[in-house]
Amino acid sequence: VSERFALHGCFRAHEGQGDALAAVLLEAADALEGNEECRLYLVSRSPDDADIVWVTEVWTSREAHAASLEDEAVRALVARGMPLIAGMPESRELRPAGGKGL
Amino acid sequence: VSERFALHGCFRAHEGQGDALAAVLLEAADALEGNEECRLYLVSRSPDDADIVWVTEVWTSREAHAASLEDEAVRALVARGMPLIAGMPESRELRPAGGKGL
Repeated sequence: VSERFALHGCFRAHEGQGDALAAVLLEAADALEGNEECRLYLVSRSPDDADIVWVTEVWTSREAHAASLEDEAVRALVARGMPLIAGMPESRELRPAGGKGL
Repeated sequence: VSERFALHGCFRAHEGQGDALAAVLLEAADALEGNEECRLYLVSRSPDDADIVWVTEVWTSREAHAASLEDEAVRALVARGMPLIAGMPESRELRPAGGKGL
């Protein structure tokens, strides 16, 4: 695979807002459906904390990810998601080397 | 998506063994190619530490993941990979909620 840029990040929602935040992030995944440079946008929940939401993204390049943040639909979703977020305790940049399923 | 079980884990290779460990993990991804219950097996490197390798897996169920570890080819790769591994500083279980690309 030629993917070169990945992010794995953890969002902490304000108390009780985990479902609402996950819903916004799943809408973001939908908004990216037509973006061929986004290879993966996986929204996951924590098994033991309902206010934690993980997002794992794989992009063809760092620039493609940055450009996506300028998209109107994505910006609208960021604006809706921000008030739900208490913090981002963890975020890592990764370099995809390959694998199955992408 | 119906995926219900994910793992995001970090392996630290013995010094200088990151490439060798990543190669074994990419072989594991190949070995899982025919396993329909494995939806994602993404091998990533750290941008700032050549001895760190990340694996992000999505499975249809916890049981499907456990069963894969009994597979002969997977066991052979685990046996080859183990001596390369200095530690596993981080591993998290996640519950995929949906997204793009799976």
